[in-house]
Amino acid sequence: MIRTHTAGSLRKEHAGQQVTLAGWVARRRDHGGVVFIDLRDASGSAQVVFREEDHAHDLRSEYCVRIAGEVRVRPEGNENPDLPTGEIEVVASEVEVLSESAPLPFPIEGGTGVSEEARLKYRYLDMRRQQVAHAMRVRSTATYLAHEVMREHGFLYVETPDLTRSTPEGARDFLVPVRLQPGNWYALPQSPQLFKQLLMVGGLERYYQLARCFRDEDLRADRQPEFTQIDVEMSFVDQDDVIALGEALVGRIWKETVGYELPTPLPRMTYADAMSRYGSDKPDLRFGCELVDMTSYFADTTFRVFQAPYVGAVVMPGGASQTRKELDAWQDWAKARGARGLAYVLVQPGGELGGPVAKNLSETERAGLAAAVGASEGDAVFFAAGIPGPSRDLLGAARLEIGRRCGLIDESLWSFLWVVDAPMFEPVLDDVGRQTGWTAVHHPFTGPKPEYADTFHERPGEALAYAYDMVCNGMEIGGGSIRIHRAEMQQRVFEVLGISKEEAESKFGFLLEAFKYGPPPHGGIAYGWDRICMLLAGGDSIRDVIAFPKTASGFDPLTGAPTPITADQRKEAGVDARKAPAAAPKAAASDG
Amino acid sequence: MIRTHTAGSLRKEHAGQQVTLAGWVARRRDHGGVVFIDLRDASGSAQVVFREEDHAHDLRSEYCVRIAGEVRVRPEGNENPDLPTGEIEVVASEVEVLSESAPLPFPIEGGTGVSEEARLKYRYLDMRRQQVAHAMRVRSTATYLAHEVMREHGFLYVETPDLTRSTPEGARDFLVPVRLQPGNWYALPQSPQLFKQLLMVGGLERYYQLARCFRDEDLRADRQPEFTQIDVEMSFVDQDDVIALGEALVGRIWKETVGYELPTPLPRMTYADAMSRYGSDKPDLRFGCELVDMTSYFADTTFRVFQAPYVGAVVMPGGASQTRKELDAWQDWAKARGARGLAYVLVQPGGELGGPVAKNLSETERAGLAAAVGASEGDAVFFAAGIPGPSRDLLGAARLEIGRRCGLIDESLWSFLWVVDAPMFEPVLDDVGRQTGWTAVHHPFTGPKPEYADTFHERPGEALAYAYDMVCNGMEIGGGSIRIHRAEMQQRVFEVLGISKEEAESKFGFLLEAFKYGPPPHGGIAYGWDRICMLLAGGDSIRDVIAFPKTASGFDPLTGAPTPITADQRKEAGVDARKAPAAAPKAAASDG
Repeated sequence: MIRTHTAGSLRKEHAGQQVTLAGWVARRRDHGGVVFIDLRDASGSAQVVFREEDHAHDLRSEYCVRIAGEVRVRPEGNENPDLPTGEIEVVASEVEVLSESAPLPFPIEGGTGVSEEARLKYRYLDMRRQQVAHAMRVRSTATYLAHEVMREHGFLYVETPDLTRSTPEGARDFLVPVRLQPGNWYALPQSPQLFKQLLMVGGLERYYQLARCFRDEDLRADRQPEFTQIDVEMSFVDQDDVIALGEALVGRIWKETVGYELPTPLPRMTYADAMSRYGSDKPDLRFGCELVDMTSYFADTTFRVFQAPYVGAVVMPGGASQTRKELDAWQDWAKARGARGLAYVLVQPGGELGGPVAKNLSETERAGLAAAVGASEGDAVFFAAGIPGPSRDLLGAARLEIGRRCGLIDESLWSFLWVVDAPMFEPVLDDVGRQTGWTAVHHPFTGPKPEYADTFHERPGEALAYAYDMVCNGMEIGGGSIRIHRAEMQQRVFEVLGISKEEAESKFGFLLEAFKYGPPPHGGIAYGWDRICMLLAGGDSIRDVIAFPKTASGFDPLTGAPTPITADQRKEAGVDARKAPAAAPKAAASDG
Repeated sequence: MIRTHTAGSLRKEHAGQQVTLAGWVARRRDHGGVVFIDLRDASGSAQVVFREEDHAHDLRSEYCVRIAGEVRVRPEGNENPDLPTGEIEVVASEVEVLSESAPLPFPIEGGTGVSEEARLKYRYLDMRRQQVAHAMRVRSTATYLAHEVMREHGFLYVETPDLTRSTPEGARDFLVPVRLQPGNWYALPQSPQLFKQLLMVGGLERYYQLARCFRDEDLRADRQPEFTQIDVEMSFVDQDDVIALGEALVGRIWKETVGYELPTPLPRMTYADAMSRYGSDKPDLRFGCELVDMTSYFADTTFRVFQAPYVGAVVMPGGASQTRKELDAWQDWAKARGARGLAYVLVQPGGELGGPVAKNLSETERAGLAAAVGASEGDAVFFAAGIPGPSRDLLGAARLEIGRRCGLIDESLWSFLWVVDAPMFEPVLDDVGRQTGWTAVHHPFTGPKPEYADTFHERPGEALAYAYDMVCNGMEIGGGSIRIHRAEMQQRVFEVLGISKEEAESKFGFLLEAFKYGPPPHGGIAYGWDRICMLLAGGDSIRDVIAFPKTASGFDPLTGAPTPITADQRKEAGVDARKAPAAAPKAAASDG
């Protein structure tokens, strides 16, 4: 090492010692002949004093320097209690410029308001900022803790392939031409789902991996074309085993990175409850404002809008005092989500109901409404009416919006839960809303809860899956299921889904083949690692915890990827060779 | 868990306990009414006794079963001391078939001579065999140990992108079309080299990663199109720091997986020494048979073949007794390597020299030869003469072949060393052997040893690189270097290599841009993880330690990848969209 100490480690007890430091010039202050510099390295920073200006003459921001000098206690009154090294300074006797820095595209210290594009283009400078460096550190620590917990629980780390088989039916696969076999292509995996199930057939019993996954999908919201999951699969287990492991994993990570003690066992909520109370399969429990089912309350209503299979409401505390403009904005918000609007009543002082809906209600309906929805004077009540699913979605979204606008969400809280008992199937509807069949809510290998094992094919709409999602602060951070391992049961699932034997063979052939040879009962889960690290680091986006992220369009401002390729590259890579696809085995299910 | 115990954990002290096991039917023996079954799970196996044949009636090989019963001490005389569970057996009272198995394509227990293609096609069955399961376990343990060591040394685990920028000049990149930006392509990284250097510019100081790398190259020898390395980079360090870390890492892994104590510090050998003594930059020191430089011995020879800039020899102990056919086979062996042949003399009983070369030598040359090369009666001596490089290569290969054929290699030994001081540059030769320029032996960011820092551009052929390779048993298992971080020095390297500013900008633009902003001195190394795990698991090929490997041609017999794609897939993925490549920044150096 070309230094003897790290800057951030210096303390009073080093006083009198000769030290050599190496790092970056963070801040510089000139005080008539004496120059002070904050020297920053990965450990923190220390103040360096140059008695003679000569030495410090050439030092500019972000020069990389090596400094030798003596540690001394700062003169009384000059201490900085906010800094771990605030009691000392280093009196420089020697300076070596290891490398100079050109003028910076944005300031490292204290600068805010830098565009994300600039930050990503100069990510290596962005990384010198405390918040980004902190995020990288938290992610690294969390990764290590994950390895530790999984090892303690007897899991094997197994690396699965990134160059694998493309599925004609599996849209969103990234494809990779193979130079040595022109006309043949690999695909990058959307998840290691099939391989981890094969590892269970192979008898490894406990598998995990920090797995890179790839999905060439529209990058709406906070998505990246490549992302990381902690992928887990276990044999001879039940749902409770996978859940207990998840609590041990997440518990250790939260405890040792942010000091939060997970209240285990975590609460479990059924999917049906989550939808009816929160209008979401990943409810944010950090605040109340639960949905209220008003269907029976309005059973006899004459108001046409509320003559619907479902009427629900959510209360906005203090919402009655919103301006006309604010109330109109809610209508625009609802329309942007594809709804017709958002019916509301305002509970005015004295209890009178205002807003356009109120006059359509009967006197009785008006009189009992506030009590029925749990609204007080000064609150607004929003309604959605129609078929339950979309209506609850809308109210669930309104609830979150209310939480944000009214500041109801305590950002210091952690709210964890498991959402269990999701439906196994959901109807496939045609353009006019008629059901044409069933589709799997998770993937076709997801098992039914034991009580539906024998009957799910008779009443697919009622069957619940043996699936579980871990939710934190309104985000799904993990999802998995107990898988089907019996050919007979798998066949019934395919029948419900309308998948013929030929199609199953073509889509999932090699997994079905493996399942002929004594597959063990098994189940697993996958944790969204970018999202978990984002929560731990306190970021707003998964881009905050990815060293070299891409923008929402999949562009990398740093390297300029992706780029056009040359004719030579096309030729060399065999991009234009064509072969007729052969019928063959494969599947592309993904966890979560 | 659907079991109470693992089969392999049962011991005498469990006698009398009711247990439930789950696993696979490994072996079955019927003894008139009593059936014995070996039940195998990931922990090992236990003998299960069925008193009534009924229960065991349907159990066939590799059925997955759950068995409840009582543990009892085996009747005297029936113990199996070779088995950890050999003192007990489980008397079954209940059996549940969890899943049946079709007849197996090859036997799991005891079967040998199964083709690799079959093993890979049914890898999940292959994995149930002890050797493959053991390899997976060793790899997992080694991976965990690597994390532990790196964490103890303050390294951050950082994940770098797999979807990155293609380099027009960088052949062997796998390319990936981007559906959302038709005509634009990502490339899969051959290594995270550029990103890890950027992390150093970013001030993270200590980075490591278990990194997946991709290379679309001819799969000669033991290569895979995707492979794993433990990738490391450090700031403010010298060669000794990277070497010390490597010894800590490899030392811990070898100690805790195979119980071998690494003799640290490991010996270091210069590249020049390795080449002259072993004819290899990765010498296998488990046996002697060093090359002998006979150039001066034959300085005045009249034998035309030995009138060469270099004459070297290697001794094959006992080689004089080889048959004519065996000696001819050496000639074929040499020709297959591109040499004209392999000159030899045989030291016959009495010291007389035999073989066709002997008669071309002078009496004096013959008389002193055996002593000069260190050969004894009964040995053969092989020669190579010509320019030093290829001649030494040939002798080095002959040495290894001698080691194998004569059984000189003690397979129980571990022989580690560092090979240091490789040349920075090597000549580029045209078709007739004239030098047209210089190429970098490592990559253009490899720094010179300090003593060549100021002069390497004046005498490129003499300059030594600040590079180091870790070698184990004749295999390179790690390689790296101290990098250049000064623009001025980098410029001189580009000049030696004949790389113009424009070309450098186009190839390495974003790294050179980063180097403008106070880059720290840094260096690193990458360990070939598949190869290390192969050594630890005692395998012959890296395929032995990869869960789902591809064959030598890049084919995956299990999934059938790679495959042709459909016209729809081509269209969807934007494969046929074309855009003119833009000039832009990039580099594609790789460690090792």
